[in-house]
Amino acid sequence: MIEYGDASAEVRAVYDDILTTRKTDYLNNFWKALAHDPVTLRRTWESIKQIMAPGTLDSVTKEMIYLAVSVTNQCPYCIASHTVAARKAGMTDQMLAELMAVVGMANESNRLASGYQVEIDERFKT
Amino acid sequence: MIEYGDASAEVRAVYDDILTTRKTDYLNNFWKALAHDPVTLRRTWESIKQIMAPGTLDSVTKEMIYLAVSVTNQCPYCIASHTVAARKAGMTDQMLAELMAVVGMANESNRLASGYQVEIDERFKT
Amino acid sequence: MIEYGDASAEVRAVYDDILTTRKTDYLNNFWKALAHDPVTLRRTWESIKQIMAPGTLDSVTKEMIYLAVSVTNQCPYCIASHTVAARKAGMTDQMLAELMAVVGMANESNRLASGYQVEIDERFKT
Amino acid sequence: MIEYGDASAEVRAVYDDILTTRKTDYLNNFWKALAHDPVTLRRTWESIKQIMAPGTLDSVTKEMIYLAVSVTNQCPYCIASHTVAARKAGMTDQMLAELMAVVGMANESNRLASGYQVEIDERFKT
Amino acid sequence: MIEYGDASAEVRAVYDDILTTRKTDYLNNFWKALAHDPVTLRRTWESIKQIMAPGTLDSVTKEMIYLAVSVTNQCPYCIASHTVAARKAGMTDQMLAELMAVVGMANESNRLASGYQVEIDERFKT
Amino acid sequence: MIEYGDASAEVRAVYDDILTTRKTDYLNNFWKALAHDPVTLRRTWESIKQIMAPGTLDSVTKEMIYLAVSVTNQCPYCIASHTVAARKAGMTDQMLAELMAVVGMANESNRLASGYQVEIDERFKT
Repeated sequence: MIEYGDASAEVRAVYDDILTTRKTDYLNNFWKALAHDPVTLRRTWESIKQIMAPGTLDSVTKEMIYLAVSVTNQCPYCIASHTVAARKAGMTDQMLAELMAVVGMANESNRLASGYQVEIDERFKT
Repeated sequence: MIEYGDASAEVRAVYDDILTTRKTDYLNNFWKALAHDPVTLRRTWESIKQIMAPGTLDSVTKEMIYLAVSVTNQCPYCIASHTVAARKAGMTDQMLAELMAVVGMANESNRLASGYQVEIDERFKT
Repeated sequence: MIEYGDASAEVRAVYDDILTTRKTDYLNNFWKALAHDPVTLRRTWESIKQIMAPGTLDSVTKEMIYLAVSVTNQCPYCIASHTVAARKAGMTDQMLAELMAVVGMANESNRLASGYQVEIDERFKT
Repeated sequence: MIEYGDASAEVRAVYDDILTTRKTDYLNNFWKALAHDPVTLRRTWESIKQIMAPGTLDSVTKEMIYLAVSVTNQCPYCIASHTVAARKAGMTDQMLAELMAVVGMANESNRLASGYQVEIDERFKT
Repeated sequence: MIEYGDASAEVRAVYDDILTTRKTDYLNNFWKALAHDPVTLRRTWESIKQIMAPGTLDSVTKEMIYLAVSVTNQCPYCIASHTVAARKAGMTDQMLAELMAVVGMANESNRLASGYQVEIDERFKT
Repeated sequence: MIEYGDASAEVRAVYDDILTTRKTDYLNNFWKALAHDPVTLRRTWESIKQIMAPGTLDSVTKEMIYLAVSVTNQCPYCIASHTVAARKAGMTDQMLAELMAVVGMANESNRLASGYQVEIDERFKT
């Protein structure tokens, strides 16, 4: 992991933008690990910055969708970091409980639909 | 698939509750396929009814989370049916676009975090 | 796909062993597609023949486990072919219903456990 | 995690039913973590109780199918806890070995079938 | 899907860059579907253009890695399009056969390692 | 785990072949864990030995494809061991960075293609 003090000017510029945009002085291990590849660091940050900015969906909704994906993929790092990020964006205990219930059920019914080889209804076809 | 007209009283009771709760006269193929196993049909419906009812999260947010999981798992039936369900609950084209962007990015960054074996930050530990 | 009549001696030897072992005169598309790579065809068949032979677990149990994996991975070809194979080995409608219920629930609870970052109980550690 | 002594009456009622049904005095971390959301705790337990009760499939077969899914999804908590549960239900070392061999092979052949874009045989279509 | 003739100036600029960079006059359905969200269309194309350009790894190696991921995820669209893309970049039948054999085996051994709860060797720790 | 000194003649024969083929005196935990099931140990080793031997694809390309699958599946053991194996076969930091970028992007675009229900282009059909 590349700490702020050891970072090249190129990496530090990305670090600074992360810290400023997120209004924090803490840099996640994720970024410090990516920093070994400054091209991927910059592209990933620019993409996340664009995608996660509030739009028609607000920040907490976007963070909850991010978390739903991470739970489905069972990525321990992403679950830990995005549970914290979603809470920071406003997710309460009750919202987390409802999110997890939906994620669990969707993972179940996805397999029932595929397992029983259910054909797509005509009206659902694009 | 078991059509409404061919359903047993037990199955018909579930069908009726689905149609009433959802204020529709159309029954998805998913339910007609599950109906071969009335126990699973009833349990799955009762669970989905409880989980998807508006709570702290409203219906459209719950449907979008459901869709995010289905896209991550790449379940064709579930993507088709829940894209329609989410639109019915209020998801606009712009909301779908933002949802898909978050789902795509989360699937990417999940692998970067796992692939680079990033350790969970102390402050993210429960 | 390489049909029996067009197969090289090397491929035909594998085809013959499949048909004899399985007591059938029908060759699945899976084998005809693999036949473009005779090395993988032979290795895959030899492995499957060894693994799926009745042992402490009987054929229907092995086929049901195979199907449970295929449903979890949502592989359409594998679900279609192994549902048929499991039925041929003795799986009834009721057994399929119970199998699918377990597969659905396991996929749900896997995400609840991972999503809530549940720590492994001391007594479950190897 | 909510310990038995700290649980509300609502949660304790579920805990008691788990301990009685399973004839044990040990409560898994999974339940203690779910207990923060009593609605999901109750629904999940009621579903698992119904699904995992011996039916046409006996307990050990159901536990092995559960384990096969957990291994495919690579859920560390679920693998650890359900390996123990399956052994308690009667799974021997040899049965575990055969289970793992089938799970491994199914995960391999699922990708060969999908990767080679094998078409579903007419006779396997529902 | 948005055809070239119906595209806005913004979308057409991306389409033109895709066609020029790839030295082709054929636009994949993937891009035409993404074009409903010009922001995601541009970001995705810019990222893919940067990532897939020959670097230390040549084009055919990158395309084969892309295909290996798509096969593992079992994405039918991606398998179909990237099998063609990899062949165009130089992948022969023999290379495809070796790729598929590795992908199949990795998917198998991933589950054996996780299922048997194998601890990471000290020397493999980062 | 079964150490070399405790292994049966049958297991030791496989261990010896692994050590000789790989020109090393270190045996991974993976093999020691598999050794409880000598049949699977032998079959898995014979398959891996055949598949990973340099062919049209050289060793480092095969190891990178193996790693790409392991990252996509998020198997911690496999990521740790195959990152080391790929480096031993010649993967540099720059090659790893390019590999990870492709793996991340493929995981993203797989979901965009599936989520938007993109139809397979006629010319990509087999």
